[in-house]
Amino acid sequence: MKRIESPKNARVKQWKKLLTKKGRDETGLFLLEGFHLVEEAVKSNAPLVELMVDERTAIPPGWDVSVPVVIVTEAVMKAISSTETPQGIAAVCRKLPAELEGVKTALLIDAVQDPGNLGTMIRTADAAGIDAVILGEGCADVYNPKVVRATQGSLFHLPVVKGDLVQWIARFKEQGIPVYGTALENAVDYRTVPPSSSFALLVGNEGSGVRPDLLRLTTENVYIPIYGQAESLNVAVAAGILLYSLQAVR
Amino acid sequence: MKRIESPKNARVKQWKKLLTKKGRDETGLFLLEGFHLVEEAVKSNAPLVELMVDERTAIPPGWDVSVPVVIVTEAVMKAISSTETPQGIAAVCRKLPAELEGVKTALLIDAVQDPGNLGTMIRTADAAGIDAVILGEGCADVYNPKVVRATQGSLFHLPVVKGDLVQWIARFKEQGIPVYGTALENAVDYRTVPPSSSFALLVGNEGSGVRPDLLRLTTENVYIPIYGQAESLNVAVAAGILLYSLQAVR
Repeated sequence: MKRIESPKNARVKQWKKLLTKKGRDETGLFLLEGFHLVEEAVKSNAPLVELMVDERTAIPPGWDVSVPVVIVTEAVMKAISSTETPQGIAAVCRKLPAELEGVKTALLIDAVQDPGNLGTMIRTADAAGIDAVILGEGCADVYNPKVVRATQGSLFHLPVVKGDLVQWIARFKEQGIPVYGTALENAVDYRTVPPSSSFALLVGNEGSGVRPDLLRLTTENVYIPIYGQAESLNVAVAAGILLYSLQAVR
Repeated sequence: MKRIESPKNARVKQWKKLLTKKGRDETGLFLLEGFHLVEEAVKSNAPLVELMVDERTAIPPGWDVSVPVVIVTEAVMKAISSTETPQGIAAVCRKLPAELEGVKTALLIDAVQDPGNLGTMIRTADAAGIDAVILGEGCADVYNPKVVRATQGSLFHLPVVKGDLVQWIARFKEQGIPVYGTALENAVDYRTVPPSSSFALLVGNEGSGVRPDLLRLTTENVYIPIYGQAESLNVAVAAGILLYSLQAVR
Protein backbone atom coordinates (compact mmCIF):
# COMPACT_ATOMS: atom_id res chain seq x y z
CA MET A 1 0.00 0.00 0.00
CA LYS A 2 1.09 3.48 -0.79
CA ARG A 3 2.11 5.65 2.15
CA ILE A 4 2.22 9.46 2.38
CA GLU A 5 3.91 11.16 5.31
CA SER A 6 4.13 14.83 4.42
CA PRO A 7 1.26 17.29 4.15
CA LYS A 8 3.35 18.96 1.44
CA ASN A 9 3.15 15.92 -0.84
CA ALA A 10 1.69 16.77 -4.26
CA ARG A 11 -1.14 14.24 -3.80
CA VAL A 12 -2.14 15.89 -0.52
CA LYS A 13 -2.28 19.23 -2.30
CA GLN A 14 -4.69 17.72 -4.85
CA TRP A 15 -6.89 16.39 -2.06
CA LYS A 16 -6.90 19.75 -0.32
CA LYS A 17 -8.19 21.38 -3.50
CA LEU A 18 -11.34 19.29 -3.09
CA LEU A 19 -12.15 21.33 0.01
CA THR A 20 -12.96 24.19 -2.42
CA LYS A 21 -15.87 24.37 -4.86
CA LYS A 22 -13.45 25.29 -7.66
CA GLY A 23 -11.36 22.20 -6.99
CA ARG A 24 -14.45 19.98 -6.94
CA ASP A 25 -15.89 21.48 -10.11
CA GLU A 26 -12.61 21.15 -12.03
CA THR A 27 -12.10 17.51 -11.11
CA GLY A 28 -15.62 16.17 -10.66
CA LEU A 29 -14.44 14.73 -7.33
CA PHE A 30 -15.28 15.38 -3.69
CA LEU A 31 -14.03 14.37 -0.26
CA LEU A 32 -15.73 12.23 2.37
CA GLU A 33 -14.64 12.11 6.00
CA GLY A 34 -15.28 9.75 8.86
CA PHE A 35 -16.31 6.13 9.30
CA HIS A 36 -20.05 6.60 8.97
CA LEU A 37 -19.92 8.53 5.69
CA VAL A 38 -17.28 6.34 4.06
CA GLU A 39 -19.19 3.23 5.15
CA GLU A 40 -22.41 4.62 3.62
CA ALA A 41 -20.49 5.26 0.39
CA VAL A 42 -19.10 1.70 0.35
CA LYS A 43 -22.53 0.15 1.11
CA SER A 44 -24.20 2.32 -1.54
CA ASN A 45 -21.66 1.37 -4.22
CA ALA A 46 -20.75 5.02 -4.62
CA PRO A 47 -18.04 5.74 -7.25
CA LEU A 48 -15.13 5.86 -4.79
CA VAL A 49 -11.70 6.64 -6.21
CA GLU A 50 -9.44 6.04 -3.24
CA LEU A 51 -9.42 5.71 0.53
CA MET A 52 -7.09 7.57 2.86
CA VAL A 53 -6.51 5.87 6.20
CA ASP A 54 -4.56 7.21 9.19
CA GLU A 55 -1.62 4.91 9.93
CA ARG A 56 -3.00 4.32 13.46
CA THR A 57 -6.44 3.36 12.12
CA ALA A 58 -7.71 0.11 10.64
CA ILE A 59 -10.36 -0.32 7.94
CA PRO A 60 -13.28 -1.98 9.71
CA PRO A 61 -13.66 -5.70 8.90
CA GLY A 62 -16.45 -6.48 6.49
CA TRP A 63 -15.95 -3.43 4.27
CA ASP A 64 -15.77 -4.49 0.65
CA VAL A 65 -13.21 -1.96 -0.53
CA SER A 66 -12.10 -2.38 -4.11
CA VAL A 67 -10.28 0.95 -4.51
CA PRO A 68 -6.67 1.84 -3.70
CA VAL A 69 -5.95 2.58 -0.06
CA VAL A 70 -3.36 5.21 0.86
CA ILE A 71 -1.89 5.13 4.36
CA VAL A 72 -1.33 8.66 5.68
CA THR A 73 0.09 10.30 8.79
CA GLU A 74 -1.99 12.24 11.29
CA ALA A 75 -0.53 15.46 9.83
CA VAL A 76 -1.77 14.56 6.34
CA MET A 77 -5.21 13.64 7.65
CA LYS A 78 -5.44 16.97 9.47
CA ALA A 79 -4.44 18.84 6.30
CA ILE A 80 -7.27 17.37 4.25
CA SER A 81 -9.89 17.41 6.99
CA SER A 82 -12.53 20.07 7.50
CA THR A 83 -13.17 18.97 11.08
CA GLU A 84 -11.12 19.71 14.17
CA THR A 85 -10.72 16.10 15.18
CA PRO A 86 -10.49 13.90 12.07
CA GLN A 87 -11.68 10.34 12.56
CA GLY A 88 -8.76 8.78 10.72
CA ILE A 89 -10.55 7.80 7.52
CA ALA A 90 -11.43 9.75 4.40
CA ALA A 91 -12.15 9.05 0.76
CA VAL A 92 -12.16 10.65 -2.65
CA CYS A 93 -15.39 10.02 -4.53
CA ARG A 94 -16.63 10.96 -7.99
CA LYS A 95 -19.63 13.29 -8.02
CA LEU A 96 -22.71 11.10 -8.00
CA PRO A 97 -24.75 10.24 -11.09
CA ALA A 98 -28.43 11.15 -10.81
CA GLU A 99 -31.30 9.15 -12.27
CA LEU A 100 -34.46 11.22 -12.35
CA GLU A 101 -36.78 8.96 -14.35
CA GLY A 102 -40.03 8.14 -12.60
CA VAL A 103 -39.66 10.68 -9.82
CA LYS A 104 -43.05 11.05 -8.11
CA THR A 105 -42.04 13.00 -5.00
CA ALA A 106 -39.41 15.73 -4.80
CA LEU A 107 -38.04 18.40 -2.51
CA LEU A 108 -37.17 21.59 -4.43
CA ILE A 109 -34.81 23.93 -2.60
CA ASP A 110 -34.46 27.61 -3.52
CA ALA A 111 -31.30 29.40 -2.32
CA VAL A 112 -30.66 27.66 0.99
CA GLN A 113 -27.13 28.71 1.83
CA ASP A 114 -26.41 27.20 5.21
CA PRO A 115 -24.59 23.89 4.66
CA GLY A 116 -26.09 22.36 7.81
CA ASN A 117 -29.63 23.23 6.75
CA LEU A 118 -29.06 21.91 3.22
CA GLY A 119 -27.52 18.63 4.38
CA THR A 120 -30.19 18.14 7.03
CA MET A 121 -32.92 18.61 4.40
CA ILE A 122 -31.35 15.96 2.16
CA ARG A 123 -31.26 13.60 5.15
CA THR A 124 -34.89 14.43 5.97
CA ALA A 125 -36.02 13.89 2.37
CA ASP A 126 -34.33 10.48 2.43
CA ALA A 127 -36.00 9.56 5.74
CA ALA A 128 -39.40 10.66 4.40
CA GLY A 129 -38.97 8.42 1.35
CA ILE A 130 -38.81 11.29 -1.13
CA ASP A 131 -37.55 10.34 -4.63
CA ALA A 132 -35.25 13.30 -5.40
CA VAL A 133 -33.91 16.63 -4.17
CA ILE A 134 -33.49 19.46 -6.68
CA LEU A 135 -31.32 22.44 -5.81
CA GLY A 136 -32.04 25.78 -7.47
CA GLU A 137 -29.75 28.76 -7.85
CA GLY A 138 -28.10 30.13 -4.75
CA CYS A 139 -27.96 26.87 -2.80
CA ALA A 140 -24.77 25.78 -1.08
CA ASP A 141 -22.73 23.23 -3.04
CA VAL A 142 -24.00 19.75 -2.21
CA TYR A 143 -20.40 18.46 -2.23
CA ASN A 144 -19.24 21.04 0.35
CA PRO A 145 -17.82 18.89 3.21
CA LYS A 146 -20.23 20.46 5.73
CA VAL A 147 -23.23 19.62 3.53
CA VAL A 148 -21.97 16.08 2.95
CA ARG A 149 -21.49 15.61 6.70
CA ALA A 150 -24.96 16.94 7.55
CA THR A 151 -26.57 14.52 5.06
CA GLN A 152 -25.22 11.67 7.24
CA GLY A 153 -24.86 9.62 4.06
CA SER A 154 -28.29 10.32 2.59
CA LEU A 155 -26.46 11.91 -0.34
CA PHE A 156 -25.81 8.33 -1.48
CA HIS A 157 -29.43 7.24 -1.07
CA LEU A 158 -31.38 9.52 -3.37
CA PRO A 159 -30.55 11.73 -6.38
CA VAL A 160 -29.59 15.30 -5.49
CA VAL A 161 -29.22 17.52 -8.56
CA LYS A 162 -28.87 21.15 -9.49
CA GLY A 163 -31.62 22.44 -11.72
CA ASP A 164 -33.73 25.33 -12.94
CA LEU A 165 -36.66 25.42 -10.54
CA VAL A 166 -38.90 27.24 -13.04
CA GLN A 167 -38.48 24.34 -15.47
CA TRP A 168 -38.88 21.70 -12.78
CA ILE A 169 -42.10 23.22 -11.45
CA ALA A 170 -43.49 23.24 -15.00
CA ARG A 171 -42.39 19.66 -15.60
CA PHE A 172 -44.03 18.34 -12.42
CA LYS A 173 -47.27 20.17 -13.16
CA GLU A 174 -47.33 18.77 -16.72
CA GLN A 175 -47.08 15.31 -15.21
CA GLY A 176 -50.04 16.03 -12.94
CA ILE A 177 -47.81 16.20 -9.86
CA PRO A 178 -48.90 19.07 -7.58
CA VAL A 179 -46.18 21.51 -6.49
CA TYR A 180 -46.58 23.11 -3.05
CA GLY A 181 -44.65 26.26 -2.27
CA THR A 182 -44.10 27.53 1.27
CA ALA A 183 -45.18 31.08 1.96
CA LEU A 184 -46.52 33.25 4.75
CA GLU A 185 -49.14 35.02 2.60
CA ASN A 186 -51.68 33.75 0.08
CA ALA A 187 -51.18 30.27 1.42
CA VAL A 188 -53.28 27.59 3.10
CA ASP A 189 -52.64 25.72 6.36
CA TYR A 190 -50.51 22.70 5.36
CA ARG A 191 -52.86 20.35 7.19
CA THR A 192 -55.59 21.05 4.63
CA VAL A 193 -53.50 19.30 1.94
CA PRO A 194 -54.22 15.56 1.94
CA PRO A 195 -51.23 13.18 2.00
CA SER A 196 -50.32 11.86 -1.44
CA SER A 197 -47.83 9.58 -3.11
CA SER A 198 -46.96 12.21 -5.70
CA PHE A 199 -46.09 15.82 -4.90
CA ALA A 200 -43.25 18.31 -4.97
CA LEU A 201 -42.50 20.60 -2.03
CA LEU A 202 -40.67 23.89 -2.61
CA VAL A 203 -38.81 25.51 0.31
CA GLY A 204 -36.66 28.62 0.29
CA ASN A 205 -33.94 30.80 1.69
CA GLU A 206 -33.48 31.10 5.48
CA GLY A 207 -34.14 34.81 5.54
CA SER A 208 -36.26 35.67 2.54
CA GLY A 209 -38.13 32.43 1.85
CA VAL A 210 -39.04 31.20 -1.63
CA ARG A 211 -38.61 33.73 -4.47
CA PRO A 212 -41.99 35.32 -5.31
CA ASP A 213 -41.67 34.47 -9.02
CA LEU A 214 -41.47 30.78 -8.08
CA LEU A 215 -44.39 31.01 -5.65
CA ARG A 216 -46.54 32.27 -8.51
CA LEU A 217 -45.89 29.09 -10.51
CA THR A 218 -46.89 26.54 -7.87
CA THR A 219 -50.14 24.55 -7.69
CA GLU A 220 -50.76 25.92 -4.21
CA ASN A 221 -48.78 27.49 -1.39
CA VAL A 222 -48.88 26.29 2.20
CA TYR A 223 -47.87 27.66 5.59
CA ILE A 224 -47.19 26.18 9.00
CA PRO A 225 -49.13 28.06 11.70
CA ILE A 226 -47.06 29.75 14.39
CA TYR A 227 -48.76 29.46 17.80
CA GLY A 228 -46.11 31.22 19.88
CA GLN A 229 -44.05 34.35 19.38
CA ALA A 230 -41.39 32.94 17.04
CA GLU A 231 -41.38 34.68 13.67
CA SER A 232 -40.74 31.53 11.72
CA LEU A 233 -39.37 28.00 11.84
CA ASN A 234 -35.91 26.89 10.79
CA VAL A 235 -36.18 25.85 7.11
CA ALA A 236 -35.00 22.27 7.75
CA VAL A 237 -37.52 21.84 10.58
CA ALA A 238 -40.27 23.26 8.33
CA ALA A 239 -39.29 20.90 5.51
CA GLY A 240 -39.48 17.96 7.93
CA ILE A 241 -42.95 18.88 9.19
CA LEU A 242 -44.24 19.38 5.64
CA LEU A 243 -42.67 16.30 4.04
CA TYR A 244 -44.01 14.03 6.78
CA SER A 245 -47.43 15.61 6.50
CA LEU A 246 -47.61 15.49 2.68
CA GLN A 247 -46.10 12.05 2.17
CA ALA A 248 -48.51 9.12 1.87
CA VAL A 249 -46.81 5.80 2.49
CA ARG A 250 -46.70 3.80 -0.71
CA MET B 1 -22.29 58.17 26.58
CA LYS B 2 -19.35 56.10 27.60
CA ARG B 3 -16.88 55.18 24.87
CA ILE B 4 -14.37 52.32 24.81
CA GLU B 5 -11.67 52.17 22.15
CA SER B 6 -9.29 49.43 23.20
CA PRO B 7 -10.00 45.68 23.24
CA LYS B 8 -7.62 45.61 26.22
CA ASN B 9 -9.93 47.75 28.34
CA ALA B 10 -10.91 46.03 31.61
CA ARG B 11 -14.62 46.24 30.75
CA VAL B 12 -14.00 44.47 27.45
CA LYS B 13 -12.20 41.71 29.32
CA GLN B 14 -15.28 41.27 31.53
CA TRP B 15 -17.52 41.04 28.47
CA LYS B 16 -15.23 38.49 26.86
CA LYS B 17 -15.55 36.29 29.95
CA LEU B 18 -19.25 35.95 29.11
CA LEU B 19 -18.24 33.97 26.03
CA THR B 20 -17.34 31.15 28.45
CA LYS B 21 -19.73 29.09 30.55
CA LYS B 22 -17.59 29.78 33.64
CA GLY B 23 -17.86 33.52 33.10
CA ARG B 24 -21.62 33.31 32.63
CA ASP B 25 -22.13 31.10 35.67
CA GLU B 26 -20.02 33.35 37.92
CA THR B 27 -21.81 36.54 36.93
CA GLY B 28 -25.32 35.39 36.05
CA LEU B 29 -24.96 37.38 32.82
CA PHE B 30 -24.80 36.49 29.12
CA LEU B 31 -24.11 38.20 25.82
CA LEU B 32 -26.47 38.90 22.94
CA GLU B 33 -25.31 39.81 19.45
CA GLY B 34 -26.97 41.36 16.45
CA PHE B 35 -29.98 43.53 15.75
CA HIS B 36 -32.61 40.81 15.70
CA LEU B 37 -31.65 39.28 19.04
CA VAL B 38 -31.18 42.57 20.86
CA GLU B 39 -34.48 43.82 19.46
CA GLU B 40 -36.25 40.67 20.67
CA ALA B 41 -34.73 41.24 24.12
CA VAL B 42 -35.90 44.88 24.16
CA LYS B 43 -39.41 43.96 22.97
CA SER B 44 -39.65 41.14 25.51
CA ASN B 45 -38.56 43.36 28.43
CA ALA B 46 -35.62 41.06 29.06
CA PRO B 47 -33.37 42.11 31.99
CA LEU B 48 -30.77 43.94 29.88
CA VAL B 49 -27.81 45.43 31.70
CA GLU B 50 -26.11 47.44 28.98
CA LEU B 51 -25.90 47.85 25.22
CA MET B 52 -22.67 47.95 23.22
CA VAL B 53 -22.93 49.78 19.91
CA ASP B 54 -20.27 50.08 17.23
CA GLU B 55 -19.35 53.75 16.70
CA ARG B 56 -20.42 53.48 13.04
CA THR B 57 -23.82 52.02 13.95
CA ALA B 58 -26.99 53.68 15.17
CA ILE B 59 -29.59 52.24 17.52
CA PRO B 60 -32.70 51.77 15.38
CA PRO B 61 -35.41 54.38 15.99
CA GLY B 62 -38.31 53.15 18.06
CA TRP B 63 -36.26 51.00 20.43
CA ASP B 64 -37.19 51.76 24.01
CA VAL B 65 -33.74 51.38 25.56
CA SER B 66 -33.54 52.27 29.25
CA VAL B 67 -30.10 50.80 29.96
CA PRO B 68 -26.66 52.42 29.60
CA VAL B 69 -25.24 52.44 26.08
CA VAL B 70 -21.50 52.05 25.54
CA ILE B 71 -20.04 53.17 22.22
CA VAL B 72 -17.24 50.85 21.11
CA THR B 73 -14.78 50.58 18.23
CA GLU B 74 -14.89 47.86 15.59
CA ALA B 75 -11.90 46.22 17.32
CA VAL B 76 -13.80 46.01 20.63
CA MET B 77 -16.90 44.60 18.91
CA LYS B 78 -14.77 41.94 17.21
CA ALA B 79 -13.17 41.01 20.53
CA ILE B 80 -16.51 40.29 22.21
CA SER B 81 -18.20 38.71 19.20
CA SER B 82 -18.53 35.02 18.51
CA THR B 83 -19.31 35.61 14.83
CA GLU B 84 -16.92 36.44 12.03
CA THR B 85 -18.79 39.54 10.91
CA PRO B 86 -20.32 41.27 13.95
CA GLN B 87 -23.42 43.32 13.19
CA GLY B 88 -22.34 46.30 15.31
CA ILE B 89 -24.68 45.81 18.23
CA ALA B 90 -24.47 43.60 21.30
CA ALA B 91 -25.88 43.55 24.82
CA VAL B 92 -25.26 42.17 28.27
CA CYS B 93 -28.35 40.56 29.76
CA ARG B 94 -29.08 38.90 33.08
CA LYS B 95 -29.94 35.21 32.88
CA LEU B 96 -33.69 34.98 32.43
CA PRO B 97 -36.13 34.24 35.24
CA ALA B 98 -38.36 31.25 34.59
CA GLU B 99 -41.99 30.94 35.65
CA LEU B 100 -43.14 27.33 35.45
CA GLU B 101 -46.56 27.54 37.10
CA GLY B 102 -49.40 26.22 34.98
CA VAL B 103 -47.20 24.60 32.34
CA LYS B 104 -49.41 22.25 30.28
CA THR B 105 -47.05 21.49 27.39
CA ALA B 106 -43.30 21.03 27.57
CA LEU B 107 -40.31 19.89 25.57
CA LEU B 108 -37.84 17.87 27.69
CA ILE B 109 -34.36 17.61 26.22
CA ASP B 110 -31.89 14.95 27.32
CA ALA B 111 -28.20 15.58 26.57
CA VAL B 112 -28.43 17.47 23.27
CA GLN B 113 -24.95 18.88 22.87
CA ASP B 114 -24.97 20.66 19.53
CA PRO B 115 -25.71 24.36 20.14
CA GLY B 116 -27.48 24.73 16.78
CA ASN B 117 -29.78 21.79 17.49
CA LEU B 118 -30.56 23.02 20.99
CA GLY B 119 -31.30 26.59 19.89
CA THR B 120 -33.38 25.39 16.94
CA MET B 121 -35.48 23.22 19.26
CA ILE B 122 -36.17 26.17 21.58
CA ARG B 123 -37.26 28.19 18.51
CA THR B 124 -39.45 25.30 17.33
CA ALA B 125 -41.06 24.85 20.77
CA ASP B 126 -41.88 28.58 20.74
CA ALA B 127 -43.39 28.36 17.25
CA ALA B 128 -45.46 25.34 18.24
CA GLY B 129 -46.87 27.21 21.24
CA ILE B 130 -45.22 24.98 23.83
CA ASP B 131 -45.23 26.39 27.40
CA ALA B 132 -41.68 25.50 28.54
CA VAL B 133 -38.43 23.80 27.60
CA ILE B 134 -36.60 21.76 30.25
CA LEU B 135 -32.96 20.85 29.74
CA GLY B 136 -31.61 17.74 31.44
CA GLU B 137 -28.02 16.83 32.19
CA GLY B 138 -25.53 16.92 29.34
CA CYS B 139 -27.26 19.63 27.31
CA ALA B 140 -25.29 22.55 25.90
CA ASP B 141 -25.54 25.74 27.98
CA VAL B 142 -28.62 27.66 26.86
CA TYR B 143 -26.65 30.94 27.24
CA ASN B 144 -23.87 29.77 24.90
CA PRO B 145 -23.80 32.44 22.13
CA LYS B 146 -24.39 29.81 19.42
CA VAL B 147 -27.47 28.48 21.24
CA VAL B 148 -28.78 32.01 21.82
CA ARG B 149 -28.30 32.82 18.11
CA ALA B 150 -30.05 29.64 16.95
CA THR B 151 -33.07 30.39 19.15
CA GLN B 152 -33.59 33.56 17.04
CA GLY B 153 -34.95 35.26 20.15
CA SER B 154 -37.32 32.50 21.26
CA LEU B 155 -35.23 32.29 24.43
CA PHE B 156 -37.10 35.45 25.48
CA HIS B 157 -40.52 34.03 24.64
CA LEU B 158 -40.83 30.95 26.80
CA PRO B 159 -39.15 29.64 29.96
CA VAL B 160 -36.07 27.49 29.32
CA VAL B 161 -34.75 25.88 32.50
CA LYS B 162 -32.29 23.24 33.60
CA GLY B 163 -33.84 20.42 35.56
CA ASP B 164 -33.79 16.82 36.67
CA LEU B 165 -35.73 14.99 33.97
CA VAL B 166 -36.58 12.07 36.27
CA GLN B 167 -38.35 14.49 38.62
CA TRP B 168 -40.02 16.41 35.80
CA ILE B 169 -41.40 13.26 34.19
CA ALA B 170 -42.85 12.22 37.57
CA ARG B 171 -44.32 15.69 38.15
CA PHE B 172 -46.06 15.78 34.75
CA LYS B 173 -47.48 12.29 35.20
CA GLU B 174 -48.81 13.21 38.68
CA GLN B 175 -50.61 16.13 37.07
CA GLY B 176 -52.19 13.80 34.52
CA ILE B 177 -50.02 15.19 31.71
CA PRO B 178 -48.81 12.35 29.45
CA VAL B 179 -45.06 12.21 28.75
CA TYR B 180 -43.99 10.84 25.35
CA GLY B 181 -40.44 9.63 24.90
CA THR B 182 -38.83 9.14 21.50
CA ALA B 183 -37.35 5.72 20.85
CA LEU B 184 -36.73 3.29 18.02
CA GLU B 185 -37.87 0.19 19.95
CA ASN B 186 -40.92 -0.52 22.12
CA ALA B 187 -42.55 2.56 20.68
CA VAL B 188 -45.67 3.37 18.67
CA ASP B 189 -45.99 5.37 15.43
CA TYR B 190 -46.35 9.01 16.54
CA ARG B 191 -49.45 9.42 14.38
CA THR B 192 -51.40 7.07 16.65
CA VAL B 193 -51.17 9.63 19.49
CA PRO B 194 -54.08 12.11 19.27
CA PRO B 195 -53.27 15.85 19.45
CA SER B 196 -53.79 17.31 22.91
CA SER B 197 -53.46 20.59 24.76
CA SER B 198 -51.42 18.98 27.52
CA PHE B 199 -48.40 16.75 26.96
CA ALA B 200 -44.65 16.61 27.42
CA LEU B 201 -42.30 15.40 24.68
CA LEU B 202 -38.90 13.96 25.60
CA VAL B 203 -36.14 13.98 22.96
CA GLY B 204 -32.53 12.91 23.34
CA ASN B 205 -28.90 12.98 22.35
CA GLU B 206 -27.95 13.20 18.66
CA GLY B 207 -26.10 9.89 18.67
CA SER B 208 -27.53 7.77 21.45
CA GLY B 209 -31.09 9.08 21.78
CA VAL B 210 -32.95 9.36 25.08
CA ARG B 211 -31.35 7.55 28.04
CA PRO B 212 -33.03 4.14 28.59
CA ASP B 213 -33.73 4.88 32.28
CA LEU B 214 -35.79 7.91 31.21
CA LEU B 215 -37.63 5.98 28.48
CA ARG B 216 -38.80 3.52 31.13
CA LEU B 217 -40.53 6.33 33.06
CA THR B 218 -42.62 7.79 30.24
CA THR B 219 -46.33 7.31 29.64
CA GLU B 220 -45.59 5.98 26.16
CA ASN B 221 -42.74 6.12 23.63
CA VAL B 222 -43.20 7.13 20.00
CA TYR B 223 -41.17 6.83 16.81
CA ILE B 224 -41.21 8.55 13.43
CA PRO B 225 -41.23 5.97 10.62
CA ILE B 226 -38.27 6.05 8.23
CA TYR B 227 -39.39 5.36 4.66
CA GLY B 228 -36.02 5.72 2.94
CA GLN B 229 -32.52 4.57 3.79
CA ALA B 230 -31.61 7.25 6.35
CA GLU B 231 -30.89 5.77 9.75
CA SER B 232 -32.58 8.54 11.65
CA LEU B 233 -33.73 12.16 11.55
CA ASN B 234 -31.87 15.15 12.95
CA VAL B 235 -33.13 15.65 16.52
CA ALA B 236 -34.40 19.19 15.87
CA VAL B 237 -36.31 18.05 12.77
CA ALA B 238 -37.78 15.14 14.73
CA ALA B 239 -38.81 17.47 17.57
CA GLY B 240 -40.55 19.74 15.02
CA ILE B 241 -42.51 16.89 13.43
CA LEU B 242 -43.59 15.55 16.82
CA LEU B 243 -44.48 18.88 18.46
CA TYR B 244 -46.64 19.90 15.50
CA SER B 245 -48.32 16.51 15.47
CA LEU B 246 -48.95 16.34 19.24
CA GLN B 247 -50.02 19.95 19.77
CA ALA B 248 -53.74 20.70 19.69
CA VAL B 249 -54.44 24.37 19.13
CA ARG B 250 -55.93 25.88 22.26
